Formats: sequence, C-alpha cells, structure tokens
Amino acid sequence: MRYIDEQAVEKIAIGAAVLGTGGGGDPYIGKLMAKEAIRKYGPVKVITVDELKDDQLVVPVSGMGAPTVTIEKIPSEQEVTTPLETLEKALGKKVDVVMPIEIGGINSLFPIIAAAKKGLPMLDADAMGRAFPEAQMVTFHLDGFEPAPVTMADEKGNAVVLYPKNGVWSERLARALTIEMGGSASVCDYSLLGRDVKTSVIPNTLSLAERIGEYLLDNEVKEQERMNSMLKELKGYRLFEGKIVDIERRLSGGFTRGMATFEGIRNDNGRTFTLYFQNEHLIAKEGDKLLCTTPDLIAVLDAETGFPITTERMKYGARVAVVAFPCHNKWRTPKGIETAGPRYFGYDFDYTSVEELQKERS
Amino acid sequence: MRYIDEQAVEKIAIGAAVLGTGGGGDPYIGKLMAKEAIRKYGPVKVITVDELKDDQLVVPVSGMGAPTVTIEKIPSEQEVTTPLETLEKALGKKVDVVMPIEIGGINSLFPIIAAAKKGLPMLDADAMGRAFPEAQMVTFHLDGFEPAPVTMADEKGNAVVLYPKNGVWSERLARALTIEMGGSASVCDYSLLGRDVKTSVIPNTLSLAERIGEYLLDNEVKEQERMNSMLKELKGYRLFEGKIVDIERRLSGGFTRGMATFEGIRNDNGRTFTLYFQNEHLIAKEGDKLLCTTPDLIAVLDAETGFPITTERMKYGARVAVVAFPCHNKWRTPKGIETAGPRYFGYDFDYTSVEELQKERS
Repeated sequence: MRYIDEQAVEKIAIGAAVLGTGGGGDPYIGKLMAKEAIRKYGPVKVITVDELKDDQLVVPVSGMGAPTVTIEKIPSEQEVTTPLETLEKALGKKVDVVMPIEIGGINSLFPIIAAAKKGLPMLDADAMGRAFPEAQMVTFHLDGFEPAPVTMADEKGNAVVLYPKNGVWSERLARALTIEMGGSASVCDYSLLGRDVKTSVIPNTLSLAERIGEYLLDNEVKEQERMNSMLKELKGYRLFEGKIVDIERRLSGGFTRGMATFEGIRNDNGRTFTLYFQNEHLIAKEGDKLLCTTPDLIAVLDAETGFPITTERMKYGARVAVVAFPCHNKWRTPKGIETAGPRYFGYDFDYTSVEELQKERS
Repeated sequence: MRYIDEQAVEKIAIGAAVLGTGGGGDPYIGKLMAKEAIRKYGPVKVITVDELKDDQLVVPVSGMGAPTVTIEKIPSEQEVTTPLETLEKALGKKVDVVMPIEIGGINSLFPIIAAAKKGLPMLDADAMGRAFPEAQMVTFHLDGFEPAPVTMADEKGNAVVLYPKNGVWSERLARALTIEMGGSASVCDYSLLGRDVKTSVIPNTLSLAERIGEYLLDNEVKEQERMNSMLKELKGYRLFEGKIVDIERRLSGGFTRGMATFEGIRNDNGRTFTLYFQNEHLIAKEGDKLLCTTPDLIAVLDAETGFPITTERMKYGARVAVVAFPCHNKWRTPKGIETAGPRYFGYDFDYTSVEELQKERS
C-alpha cells in the first residue's frame, strides 16, 4: 500500500468499521469526505513505521464526539484541518506526517482528508489498533507520553489549544468542549517525533483495515467465505448470530451509551445475548455468561453480507453475526487493562481474554 | 491613588463587594491573597487611563466560576498568573499592564495578585463598572472588540488557549471548561492595546472601589452616615430594609442561581421583598412591583454596619439594607440592554432605569 486512492478509501472504510467495534464515528460520512478530498487534491502517500524519520513531527488527526451526533452534524473540510494549523501555530513548527489516532470508523478517514488537503504523507499505524471511546485510551498514554498541546476545532470557527496536565485531563477538558461545541469536534493530540512514535504505535493497521475491506468486498467468493477470511486474518471468533429484539441508546456525558438484546438465530436459536456499548461495543454476554470484554474487540456484522454495523446503525429486527478478535498485546498489560478494561467502564469483573473465554465455552 | 498597599486592598475589597452586586467572587479570599502578594512582592503601581500608552498591551486577569465554589476551592498564586504566561507564549509578546475585567468581588483583587507577582502596573478602570455573571458582558464586547486569544488555568496544572468565534462563544467554551475544572478557573480575555482600551473601559473604578471602602470603614462617623456617603457617591437609593426569611441557592450551568425573600423591617415593616440572582443580583421586587433590574446595580448590605453581603453569604435571619445604583451609561444603550438587560436573563419585561422606578414609587 503506497497510495490511498478512492478505491482504497472504500476498503478502508469497511475494514475500519470492523476494527471500530461499532464506534469510531460513522465511516459513511468520512468515506464521502475522504473520496472528495482525494478527487480534489490527489491520492495520499502512505509511509510505514520503518520509513519514519526520527525528527519528523507526526500528528494524529481525529474526530471526537458521539457517533449519534456525527451522522447528523457533518464536519466541514475546514474543521478537519484547523486543529493541524492551530497546532503548527502553537508549536511554531510544520507538521511532517499525519496518522490516525484510532483505526476505527471515521477516525481512520479523518487523517486521509487532512493529509490530502495538506499534501502530507500518512502513517500506516494507529495508537489503539481498534477504536476506544476516550482520548487517553491510546498506546501513547500506556507508554507515558503526554498529549499536550491538544488542538481542537468545530465547524462554527472556534479553535482551542489545551495544555492538559495529563491524558485523563486531556480527555475531560476536550470532552467538555466537544459537548459545548455541539457534540462533535476535530482534534490533534499526542503530536510526537518520529523516534517516539516508532516505539509506541501499533503498526500496519491502515493496511489491515484495507485488507479486511478487500475480503468483505470480494464479489468473487460467497458471503460466508468472505467473513471467514476476515476472521482468519484477525484470529477471531463468531460469538453468536442473532436478531436485535431490543435496543436502548442514550446520549450521556458526550457519549452514545446503551445496550442491545438479541434472540439467537440459526445455530443459536432459543438463546438470548446482550451487548453493552459506550460509543464502542464493550461487553458481550449470553445471560450472565461473559463472551467477550473490552479491550478485546467486538464487532456486529450483517448476518448475510458480513458488512459491519455501527452502534448507532443497529436497528430492531436486524439479523446479525457478532464476532470478536483479540486486542493488541499492549492492552493486555496491567496499565492497558487499567486504562481500558471492564473495571474502568464500571463493570464489576476482571478482564479475561476472548481466547480463554472461548476455550471455556467449547 | 498611586500605589496599592495592604491598606488599600482592605478598602478595595469592601468597595468591590458593593460594586460586585453580590457576585464577582467572594472578596475575602482574594483580599488575603492580594495582601500576601503585596507583602511578598511589594505594592502595586496604579496608572490611569490617561497615562496608558497606545502600544501597551493591557491584559484583564480574572476568576471565572460560581462564587459558591470559590469560597471552598481556593485559587493558588500560580493559578492567577498562569493565564498571563500562557497568553504571552501564545502572542509572543510581553504584557505591559494588567487590569480588572470587572470591579466586583474577587475580580478586583485577582489582577492585584498578578500585577504584584509580575511587577506590572495595574490600570485604574474595568470593563463593567460592576460585576456581571457572563464573560461577554463587558464594554469591550459592546464596542465590538473580540476576546481571543482567551487563556485559562486551574489549580491542577491545566492551561488552555481559546480562539473563540466571538464573545458569546468565548463565554460558552470557557464556562464549559470552568465547570470541568471543578467550578472555578482563572482567565485572561480581551487583551487589547492601550489605544483600544482607552476608548472602551469605564475609568477610575478601582479608585471608586477604594473610596467606597474608605466610607464604610470610617470609624469616625456613625454607621448610617457611612452608608449615606456611599449612596451619595454612587447616586444610589435605599430600596428596602428587611430580614431574610427564605433563601434558595443552587449550582446550575456553572453559576450560583437563586432567590431570596425578605420581610420588611423598620420603615418597611409588614412588606415582602424578593431578590433574584445569577452569581450577581439581577432583580429586586416588592410583590409584583419591580424596584430595580439589571444592568442597574443592586447591593445587599448589613443593616447595622453597611458592609456588603455577597449572594453566597446571605443567611436566614440576616437583617439587611438593600440599595441600588444606576449602571454606567454604556449599559443603557440598546446593545448594552440586549447584552445584560432583564430579557437576556430570561425575564419577561423591559428595562426601566432605577431612577424612573424610584420616581414612580415616590
């Protein structure tokens, strides 16, 4: 993968919706914006972590907010690049490379728009290996890097530079501003030099997203085979197949929170399953039995096509396959689990890996 | 008034509590901090608007938040000067003069602390001629000046630079951050050059506050005479004397909002009065009859000593004299009334000056 063209955007959008575990912002809007940016400014050059130079300034560009809002409050091109420009002004330095802070949903596509417009290369890596709802849930935070200066912008023309005390305060202040800005905003945080970025990011996740998109869009093979190729690539599991019989979603604290209940179909007939989410899917259960928990990945796919369905697009009656993948090992360290494990989100149980949970189950 | 020493701080604190119309932050904490700063760094030089040079950078330093919080979450010296330093960094320019954004309460004292610590002169003027609860309620806003860059800090070590679209967005974003920071924060906004400041501020309000303090602290004369001297100086009126029989206060949207009910005492025996406030006193009524409304000033004084009582220090059973003063003419323009008149605060009636209301009454 050397350049991102319009076709690559199509694939990345699909793959990132899988890795986004239901969140990361609706990729549909991002896809349209990224394709438009590539038409206007040309394809985006991609560089690998190995190609990164030690003194290059690498800047993650992302959208913050509740996905429920993003699908109605569409970001402007200006909104995506203003944090980058505000950052350059604050640092008195030019940005060399942009990267996605998370590979999930719209946030895999935001940096493509910024890179295209600014004529900058994009790094094939991210700082989550998935999507997470909060700003400090990044490998940079796990590795002790600080987010400041954090820059933000909205579509109304407001811009901000934050010098938060640490990653958690960055999340708190940026979230408060995002809510005030109308529920969504664009952000640059954890701008680091190449030498630091190399030690901390999860490499090749942009090409991984593209590859997943390739599997799921492959018209030459049957739907179930497409899904199987993806599961194999991600070392994943089918948790269950079901029909959505209840869905509860509310906007709270700047997040889309809620739960979905499923009646099993096909092999899972007669069984009941539940998913809990905060922007992203966090927990999958059958009755009281845990099937998978954050930081491992949970994705909801259309039962027929294998196409991913984001939390805000889940609808009563939809027939879905719910799958799970192991997270990157960085999330399985004590700091990783403290930062994004079930207890952080208020659940009263410890993390158990999806591999172990599946072994118990079979 | 050429220098502010510890004695001057005592007087300013009293006078500013009167002009603060119940708000502007509790001056007690600010007084202790300002006196401590003067002991540590020496008296603060005061300059008049006439002495201001056209190219001097004048920076208002203030505290934002609910007074209810400030009396418990005491600001640090560092918190008061960090916005100034963050501003210098953002502008790449040194600050020449500090000034109070409002003459009310703690915000008349915050800039004294900053000026002492930084060895800068302080301007004898402010941008309200009183205290108001919201950041855009300043003469700078009435005169079309923009607040950006707005800098903020808290006691935890967080700092922020805002580039808000306009004065109203400055208030919204800064208020959201203040709430997240724990209910109070320090702010620099509307940093302007001397040539602009001259055209917009209300001059000599710092010496006015000191003079009021002088009257009320004058042990040579009787209490009622002290109050009369102050009323004469401010062209004010006694609205009523009463005992607080009910007080309702709540923290909402980052403000202390509420109302107080009074049973008349002395000449007002048998009558009932009400005050409505949002940090500052906004409306005084007898039954349905309006006695005084924002932007004119309402102050609650101890019935015996004439000492001002802030909204958060009002207590059941307290015997008080409630007085009112005409606001500066800038607040009586259409833009002034639109910005800080009763309708802005959600009251369904037009502004009538306290002079007219008093004429009707007598």
